[in-house]
Amino acid sequence: MDQKINKEFGISVKKDENFSEWYSQIIEKAGLADHISAKGFIILRPYGFAIWDLIKTYLDQKFKETGHLNGFLPCLIPESLLNKEEKHFKGFNPEVYWVTSSGDSLLSEKLALRPTSEALLYSIFPKWISSYRDLPLKMNFWNTALRAEIKSTKPFIRNSEFLWQEGHTAHVDKKEAEDEVMTILYLYKHFIEKVLSIPTISGYKSNKEKFVGADYTIALEGMMPDGKALQLGTSHNLGLNFSQPFEIKFLNKNNIEELVWQTSWGISWRLIGALIMVHGDDKGLILPPIVAPIQIIIIPIYKNVNEHLVKEHANRLKDSLVALGYRVFVDERDEFTAGWKYNEWEMKGVPVRINIGQRDIESNNVEIVRRDNRQKSIIPVENLSKEIEKIFQSLQSDLYCKAETYLKEKTKIITSFNDFKRNLDSYSGFMVTGWCGNEDCEVGVKENTGADIRVIPFDIKDLPAGLDVTYEVIKDCIYCGKKANKTVIFAKAY
Amino acid sequence: MDQKINKEFGISVKKDENFSEWYSQIIEKAGLADHISAKGFIILRPYGFAIWDLIKTYLDQKFKETGHLNGFLPCLIPESLLNKEEKHFKGFNPEVYWVTSSGDSLLSEKLALRPTSEALLYSIFPKWISSYRDLPLKMNFWNTALRAEIKSTKPFIRNSEFLWQEGHTAHVDKKEAEDEVMTILYLYKHFIEKVLSIPTISGYKSNKEKFVGADYTIALEGMMPDGKALQLGTSHNLGLNFSQPFEIKFLNKNNIEELVWQTSWGISWRLIGALIMVHGDDKGLILPPIVAPIQIIIIPIYKNVNEHLVKEHANRLKDSLVALGYRVFVDERDEFTAGWKYNEWEMKGVPVRINIGQRDIESNNVEIVRRDNRQKSIIPVENLSKEIEKIFQSLQSDLYCKAETYLKEKTKIITSFNDFKRNLDSYSGFMVTGWCGNEDCEVGVKENTGADIRVIPFDIKDLPAGLDVTYEVIKDCIYCGKKANKTVIFAKAY
Repeated sequence: MDQKINKEFGISVKKDENFSEWYSQIIEKAGLADHISAKGFIILRPYGFAIWDLIKTYLDQKFKETGHLNGFLPCLIPESLLNKEEKHFKGFNPEVYWVTSSGDSLLSEKLALRPTSEALLYSIFPKWISSYRDLPLKMNFWNTALRAEIKSTKPFIRNSEFLWQEGHTAHVDKKEAEDEVMTILYLYKHFIEKVLSIPTISGYKSNKEKFVGADYTIALEGMMPDGKALQLGTSHNLGLNFSQPFEIKFLNKNNIEELVWQTSWGISWRLIGALIMVHGDDKGLILPPIVAPIQIIIIPIYKNVNEHLVKEHANRLKDSLVALGYRVFVDERDEFTAGWKYNEWEMKGVPVRINIGQRDIESNNVEIVRRDNRQKSIIPVENLSKEIEKIFQSLQSDLYCKAETYLKEKTKIITSFNDFKRNLDSYSGFMVTGWCGNEDCEVGVKENTGADIRVIPFDIKDLPAGLDVTYEVIKDCIYCGKKANKTVIFAKAY
Repeated sequence: MDQKINKEFGISVKKDENFSEWYSQIIEKAGLADHISAKGFIILRPYGFAIWDLIKTYLDQKFKETGHLNGFLPCLIPESLLNKEEKHFKGFNPEVYWVTSSGDSLLSEKLALRPTSEALLYSIFPKWISSYRDLPLKMNFWNTALRAEIKSTKPFIRNSEFLWQEGHTAHVDKKEAEDEVMTILYLYKHFIEKVLSIPTISGYKSNKEKFVGADYTIALEGMMPDGKALQLGTSHNLGLNFSQPFEIKFLNKNNIEELVWQTSWGISWRLIGALIMVHGDDKGLILPPIVAPIQIIIIPIYKNVNEHLVKEHANRLKDSLVALGYRVFVDERDEFTAGWKYNEWEMKGVPVRINIGQRDIESNNVEIVRRDNRQKSIIPVENLSKEIEKIFQSLQSDLYCKAETYLKEKTKIITSFNDFKRNLDSYSGFMVTGWCGNEDCEVGVKENTGADIRVIPFDIKDLPAGLDVTYEVIKDCIYCGKKANKTVIFAKAY
């Protein structure tokens, strides 16, 4: 980090002036990720990977608490397996990377790089499942999926290989599978809203947008600062669609053979993309404390004469905070000014900064600065941990409120297709409309405007509070004008 | 787990009669892994994956303590990058899987599935490194490597995709890189010997056997029960071999540009294979406590009349052990007899079993059974945690001693090529011999006997204690008879 980089350090554009460039610069300048030469692939640097690792640690614990166990799956899938559930595979076909040779020899059968693992895993389920006693079988895999992005790519949002988790379960009946699908969606929702501070709208995907091979898909949609939707998590009820072709059967309590009912579900590093977009500002990232690799940065402010004293004190302070379970780092580098360090750690989104100098040591105080609103306060050291807890909680809920206010502002009830188009042209956002349920109308809207049905909310209660939606207002299909039988949300999406 | 499986549960062959079949059966019957249809690929079931996860957790902590940070690398590498360090790539060429298309479209450049990530990662290093302040750069990646196994495959030992970690570092000078290579080897050695209880011999690889692209490779070799060697970990000094073609340079303190010095190193799930082979017996796996997913299995022994009481007591005991940090499971299944459960948990290698019945509850005792030697003792509940600690330590060191005794028995000083061949024919093992240093002799031995140089020990002190090796005994090359300038270990290997 020499002087050359120093000068170029800040983001050169404003978030609300050039959102896309702002996003790219944050990723590079906060040291999250870098492109490599092959299209759509990125490398995660330690800081970016640490955020993913914290997401993983939190969710893994929740998956285990709800009875799921981790396993490992190879990334190559023989073509014949993928073809067993035809509908499923057709959906991925254009995106599948094919391995055709090893060394100079052609393979006898082409191998696909995992776009998702249903086919591979379910081919082994008949070996593991024979009786109702083997059910439910609830597994999870932290790995990557590969889907060739031929058009535009965007780090964390649209990559040819991405980190994700894929859960796969098998159950004795339909009801249990339905419960699992919902349990997982609400587990995701809790994490994304309460931990990542990102509001979501939950509901069904339309038949056109659901996971190919699922009976139905339920999903969480978030809104990004440009008004576009980002799908944040999905949970699929697979019904018997895989247990039939793969012959996954069990003997029930009456010793009669039945097919298992299945689910699959996943979230990916898109959540990091959402974190950056939703919370970041012109100075850089803003990370909610639970997923911040460094939660507290300590900057010792010293001159030559008191360098040793101040640094020693800063490190003692660090040790006491580490002992309380916080992730803390002391920036002792002599080659940078305190101001430069403030900028760097704001760029990296560290939620709390502590400045400590000679005067603070003498008065037994510290200066504490909150990342999101840059509020400063001087507090006695003995109140520090209480104050940090307060800041963490307040930062977490302020981030959520800000994002929720924005979501409400940009969510409109629209009843005419002219308003629909005008709305999209002026500021995008979510449009709550009626839909007759006919796929032709869905396609018609898409072709005319670029927007599609992001989600069919479970209930109008699930829409942002304050939106005065009733079934009386939304009575006609936005496209054909016939009677609407569903209230849906249209938006442009990533 | 119905009655059909029940009957077939035990291993049907003896370890010392059909070692290879015994190994396959353990993997299946302990529920570690399963084959899938593509050659050389396996799926890890939760129990097998949990062992890997414990290996990972332990080593990851050690890597972090020594200043390494984790990142993420994509699994596809453009052909042009691989060709930049020619020697390196040539070594992998026959094993590389090639992606040639996505969907129905041919790719403009072939992509290799990662056989190892030097080329990919080092192509980005020049962006991350500009000054001596950016060094040392010490990174690690927990991922998989893909190397097509065309000939024989063996779960955990020889697979076309395997879980591993690859560490990569860059340093200001040769000395620092040398220190890193050695630090990591001894970190591995400590883990494999003290945690996995497997003795190793450490030293250099010959030029022929070193990592292509390294100045030199140091390695750890273990001996399996059939007398064959298994390489357990390697650490490579890459010198300037990659920093030259990839132009990885830094400005030193005097503002003069220099190339970085590099290392890379790795261990893989082979360690699970070694654990199975070295410690397992005719009843199944034996796991050292630190890598045992379940450390203590509690079997409640009950009849209908006292079922509730005994199970409740067993669960209370479990809770108290979990609170002490142990991984504990209570087997409450009614459909199996206690004897069946004993067999199952012995198969899975759980280090300690606790049997608890009405009489034990009344006398406030438990029966505790150690997995390796099946020693039983009845002890008062208040002494339980002390007793468990004692058993864990003793089991850990007994496993090591047993393996070390075997290693010593099967390591011979050999001074004539006839003895060499006779020795190999009769019982394999490690042969300590002299070598002139000429690759022709190394190849000659290999072609005549199938054995190669596994390791050139750092020092004869590094050989198993009790082997009376001096340089005086080993003075001639085992193949050409000329003066030996190295003491080496030949063996057949996996």
